[in-house]
Amino acid sequence: MSHNTFGHLFRFTSWGESHGPAIGCVIDGCPPGYLLTEEIIQPYLDARKPGTSRHVTQRREEDRVKILSGVFENRTTGAPISLLIENTDARSKDYGEIADAYRPGHADYTYNAKYGFRDYRGGGRASARETAVRVAAGAVARQILGDEISIAGALVQIGDQPVARDDWSWDEVKRNALFCPSAKTLPQWEALLDQTRKAGSSLGALIEVVAHGVPVGWGAPVYGKLDADIAGAMMSIPAAKGVEIGAGFGAVRLTGEQNADEMRAGSDGPVFLSNNNGGVLGGISSGQDIIVRTAFKPTSSILTPRQSLNRKGEEVEVRTKGRHDPCVGVRAAPIAEAMLACVLADHKLRHRGQCG
Amino acid sequence: MSHNTFGHLFRFTSWGESHGPAIGCVIDGCPPGYLLTEEIIQPYLDARKPGTSRHVTQRREEDRVKILSGVFENRTTGAPISLLIENTDARSKDYGEIADAYRPGHADYTYNAKYGFRDYRGGGRASARETAVRVAAGAVARQILGDEISIAGALVQIGDQPVARDDWSWDEVKRNALFCPSAKTLPQWEALLDQTRKAGSSLGALIEVVAHGVPVGWGAPVYGKLDADIAGAMMSIPAAKGVEIGAGFGAVRLTGEQNADEMRAGSDGPVFLSNNNGGVLGGISSGQDIIVRTAFKPTSSILTPRQSLNRKGEEVEVRTKGRHDPCVGVRAAPIAEAMLACVLADHKLRHRGQCG
Amino acid sequence: MSHNTFGHLFRFTSWGESHGPAIGCVIDGCPPGYLLTEEIIQPYLDARKPGTSRHVTQRREEDRVKILSGVFENRTTGAPISLLIENTDARSKDYGEIADAYRPGHADYTYNAKYGFRDYRGGGRASARETAVRVAAGAVARQILGDEISIAGALVQIGDQPVARDDWSWDEVKRNALFCPSAKTLPQWEALLDQTRKAGSSLGALIEVVAHGVPVGWGAPVYGKLDADIAGAMMSIPAAKGVEIGAGFGAVRLTGEQNADEMRAGSDGPVFLSNNNGGVLGGISSGQDIIVRTAFKPTSSILTPRQSLNRKGEEVEVRTKGRHDPCVGVRAAPIAEAMLACVLADHKLRHRGQCG
Amino acid sequence: MSHNTFGHLFRFTSWGESHGPAIGCVIDGCPPGYLLTEEIIQPYLDARKPGTSRHVTQRREEDRVKILSGVFENRTTGAPISLLIENTDARSKDYGEIADAYRPGHADYTYNAKYGFRDYRGGGRASARETAVRVAAGAVARQILGDEISIAGALVQIGDQPVARDDWSWDEVKRNALFCPSAKTLPQWEALLDQTRKAGSSLGALIEVVAHGVPVGWGAPVYGKLDADIAGAMMSIPAAKGVEIGAGFGAVRLTGEQNADEMRAGSDGPVFLSNNNGGVLGGISSGQDIIVRTAFKPTSSILTPRQSLNRKGEEVEVRTKGRHDPCVGVRAAPIAEAMLACVLADHKLRHRGQCG
Repeated sequence: MSHNTFGHLFRFTSWGESHGPAIGCVIDGCPPGYLLTEEIIQPYLDARKPGTSRHVTQRREEDRVKILSGVFENRTTGAPISLLIENTDARSKDYGEIADAYRPGHADYTYNAKYGFRDYRGGGRASARETAVRVAAGAVARQILGDEISIAGALVQIGDQPVARDDWSWDEVKRNALFCPSAKTLPQWEALLDQTRKAGSSLGALIEVVAHGVPVGWGAPVYGKLDADIAGAMMSIPAAKGVEIGAGFGAVRLTGEQNADEMRAGSDGPVFLSNNNGGVLGGISSGQDIIVRTAFKPTSSILTPRQSLNRKGEEVEVRTKGRHDPCVGVRAAPIAEAMLACVLADHKLRHRGQCG
Repeated sequence: MSHNTFGHLFRFTSWGESHGPAIGCVIDGCPPGYLLTEEIIQPYLDARKPGTSRHVTQRREEDRVKILSGVFENRTTGAPISLLIENTDARSKDYGEIADAYRPGHADYTYNAKYGFRDYRGGGRASARETAVRVAAGAVARQILGDEISIAGALVQIGDQPVARDDWSWDEVKRNALFCPSAKTLPQWEALLDQTRKAGSSLGALIEVVAHGVPVGWGAPVYGKLDADIAGAMMSIPAAKGVEIGAGFGAVRLTGEQNADEMRAGSDGPVFLSNNNGGVLGGISSGQDIIVRTAFKPTSSILTPRQSLNRKGEEVEVRTKGRHDPCVGVRAAPIAEAMLACVLADHKLRHRGQCG
Repeated sequence: MSHNTFGHLFRFTSWGESHGPAIGCVIDGCPPGYLLTEEIIQPYLDARKPGTSRHVTQRREEDRVKILSGVFENRTTGAPISLLIENTDARSKDYGEIADAYRPGHADYTYNAKYGFRDYRGGGRASARETAVRVAAGAVARQILGDEISIAGALVQIGDQPVARDDWSWDEVKRNALFCPSAKTLPQWEALLDQTRKAGSSLGALIEVVAHGVPVGWGAPVYGKLDADIAGAMMSIPAAKGVEIGAGFGAVRLTGEQNADEMRAGSDGPVFLSNNNGGVLGGISSGQDIIVRTAFKPTSSILTPRQSLNRKGEEVEVRTKGRHDPCVGVRAAPIAEAMLACVLADHKLRHRGQCG
Repeated sequence: MSHNTFGHLFRFTSWGESHGPAIGCVIDGCPPGYLLTEEIIQPYLDARKPGTSRHVTQRREEDRVKILSGVFENRTTGAPISLLIENTDARSKDYGEIADAYRPGHADYTYNAKYGFRDYRGGGRASARETAVRVAAGAVARQILGDEISIAGALVQIGDQPVARDDWSWDEVKRNALFCPSAKTLPQWEALLDQTRKAGSSLGALIEVVAHGVPVGWGAPVYGKLDADIAGAMMSIPAAKGVEIGAGFGAVRLTGEQNADEMRAGSDGPVFLSNNNGGVLGGISSGQDIIVRTAFKPTSSILTPRQSLNRKGEEVEVRTKGRHDPCVGVRAAPIAEAMLACVLADHKLRHRGQCG
């Protein structure tokens, strides 16, 4: 039982604060023999890293990952893999004035209440910086999943502006800093973000992640359900407030006939005529695409003053001046991809453990 | 690592199939000294049990719980509590014809693919009957939480008909078989369900559960987040396809100013001016109400024929004739309440373990 | 994290008190497709059960196991297996007078101090009756291990009388009620036990268990070591006070040259010239026999009066009149075998999960 | 379920190889508010570190610990504590010739069989160097246990030479490099070690660790027994082959009357008249000293040639020329102390979690 460990057979334990010397994780349970180098992990960190466009925090972190153990001659050995990312651009002075005040919507108040005090610098342990570690672990998980399984995420809504789904292109996602799948939608979102940033405000966002190529049979009944683990994984991402699989909340409005994913015989096994279940039936993967959407609330750290309290319980106004993303969801796609990769790698090993 | 265990310090391990002799669970980690009798657990099972109205499955189960261990002179001893519920009205012949065919939207296909075969009688392990066990465990969890914490759930939407929120009454929830909080909405839903049942169809539903009185400080950062555990818990309920906390998916459309739950000094600690975060900040309870909504898909077992395959991979038509709920969500409120109670009891002990 | 669960991938959760209605366990993680019936489990319970000779407790328990779930058409389904054994010969009146007094060497005092009170009837949860559950779980574990792996245990010392190792016969072990491997030693031990019982005293014992046929490669480095798990398993048996593997404590007196198990090339893989390591090298099975010895203290419940305290802290004399084994080690061989089987089944699955 | 994690509520995950850039661990679950600095941990590492006398390996490691997270203003925050120790004196060339050959009694063969290959440099993950991490974690555990609990270990036998127990002095243990409690025994052991080293041989050893001040009530019945966890902890130390608690294997020869630790009323709670149970009754601490002995086999890496195989299965002679301890037990006392501290800190939190 660990608060900072994710997964069971493929599992990683995360550590580090926003303004400490480094962050990192230890991956335990990785099978032996997989190719693994720092160069394999780095591109995923680069995709998440801050400072890449005007739409995200201007903190400049190289986010260079170092492999400290568990790899020999570029192959995983089966021993724990220790990954370390140094913090190089932490500016603690930015946070001096919020050492005592609670930022509304942030974990400041609850951390203090739970632990009696907190490392307030940059949010300490509650910083979204921790998500770099998830992305690094996800890169290792992808090695275990192999080339047959691809995992891709995109931003599908900012504020009240959904993406133009009829203009969807996975290639476009890679071309822009917003993980936007539509060249048509992109300029609208950029304008919206510019306007929001200038207003000292922030926006919520919706992320969709799809895993393609997952074989039928991963997951488990009852509490070890694949979708239950996915839901927990996504909701553990900072600022996440909702998760849905397949038709998700939309399934409430469907009839049983509409919702049933009918099956026909294909040349290469069953063919489903729809995918309202999002690739999971009874907690077990069906072989269809696994489709997950996660809702992110707007960034809590905003320039617009908000009413709050300080540690003494006195009423104060809080304005957060540090370097923050106007929309945390913008950088969430690589994180959500990574979490899905970790859940799948874990269930691959769990399935193999029980069913051979 | 267990597929059939829920929780960490307060944890229960569930067992049993729909048409076996019994179902049950073992609760481990319960603190000593709490009052516990079968009479304390039974009302929660009665609230969930089938056959209570024309709107739910007509299977008649007494659902009498027996305490086999862990209680001495009506007090928990700290030893594992074994709970057993006999199956008395299992009719295996109803399922003979679907022994080989896969019901679309059900776990038949994925179970067979994972395990090589399955106990098809009544859905075997994948049956919603397993949820009786969750309700029993939830009743024990409530004893640990004590009277200061109340947990209540209601049905807030069936199909495309949301409840009239301006007519909300928790008392009304207890008065009707649909867990409907509005006397105004109730007859509309009853008509909708009658019509759906007659059409051999089924409907999705939305459940809302609220925990009141949870103190600030339960939960943990990062992966042991209270909301992450709640999300996993809710998504593990059969037919659940989405979970949201507080403003949930609605938070996508909010600005940072709107979403920030501002704080003022109250006579008895902090007062929040809104609760978009649904009682959880940074994975830790804030002292506000914890508000969770879970989306349930329509029942997969319907009378209307659907295209599918059998075990040999041949194309067949499937009509499910057994006794099924036209809307699984109708009986889901007591289950969702129970899961929330179990998560909270677990985190109460986890918090005490780490923070004293 | 569970106090009453043993194992990781193959795991069982035990419940029940000596004088409750029943005891049992839930086995989770069992792979699907293994043959399993009550008749397969029963012989192992019969080997452990009380009342079979004058040398053990005269409590008469049929110890009939019932399978309540997880098996369909005599095959494990992959779902949790619930096993139940009724208590039929519990005589609570025997224990009335020790409800308040602490039996020296027993868990009475520590249970009361930990939990505030206890189910004193027959030792409640601390009763050796719980070990029946281990034996049942061990029988399931053996099915997973298959016929290639055999696990056998014997009593090798009672008090100061070791078995005549030059007269060792595994067949003899099955022929007598003391699990004694030597027909020559047997009458001596019987005389010793008769004399001890008449004196109202009790004796310690040493058990040796050997697993033959375990392949090279099970186990793990560092904390998941096969021998570490075996040591924990054996020490969890009531009255166990010491565990050793291979040369064990004798290895202290060996030189590095003597202790090194040299290797030569055999026709069918490596051949070791000795087995001081008892089949485990660096926490991983070597393919040699796994050899474990466990030391049991004399039964704490004796007729001879001992000085002690009662719950009020007053000084009392305690004589335990219930039906007790004069030497708990006599019935410990089937239990130690079962625990070894469970550790091995767990590591078989763990190895498969990580290494394929 | 993790092979490289130790503990449940107080838990640490270890990583690193003998000849990698560093070793370390992540401690999760540490309560907030405890004083912690590198200076508090360092003395325990210094006590274990190599190169301090002619009797141990001449590898020179500073073993400087760095705290990378989880501590703010010298206090633990409740967040994971990442500890890192750089490897500075790794000489991989020493091991070139054993890259292919299996050292008898070492993990070379089993690692290769399990994982397909291994990091052979200095034993890779199987190196005793990993134990530095345990010592660091143990230092943190001691902070949680507080000053009321003291944990001390000593070497009590080398080869066939036991310590003179009538000359026991805990102060003497701190004065010599062998953790020998007797000034009388010390020169004999030094002579024995000199002779052994010159002969290119090695010796086994026996370690005794005592925890004083542990309150009654820590631990749990059945599988979460305090002594079961201690046994697993000790057996996980490299080269350990046996563990015993209290009278241990000696209890086999005791009668029930002798073994019963009788109780009398003291001014400050119960007083025990003996401690054959070594401070644990029914898996729960009794308030008496916890006494544990662990047997270590002689170092497997010796200069004297031994027969073995190489990776191709060919017969070879192996002589290990690296820098090795002639008696691994000599440096084992700080490690065994640390493991006992970790088990106790874990059970302190586990007890608090369940029983408040």
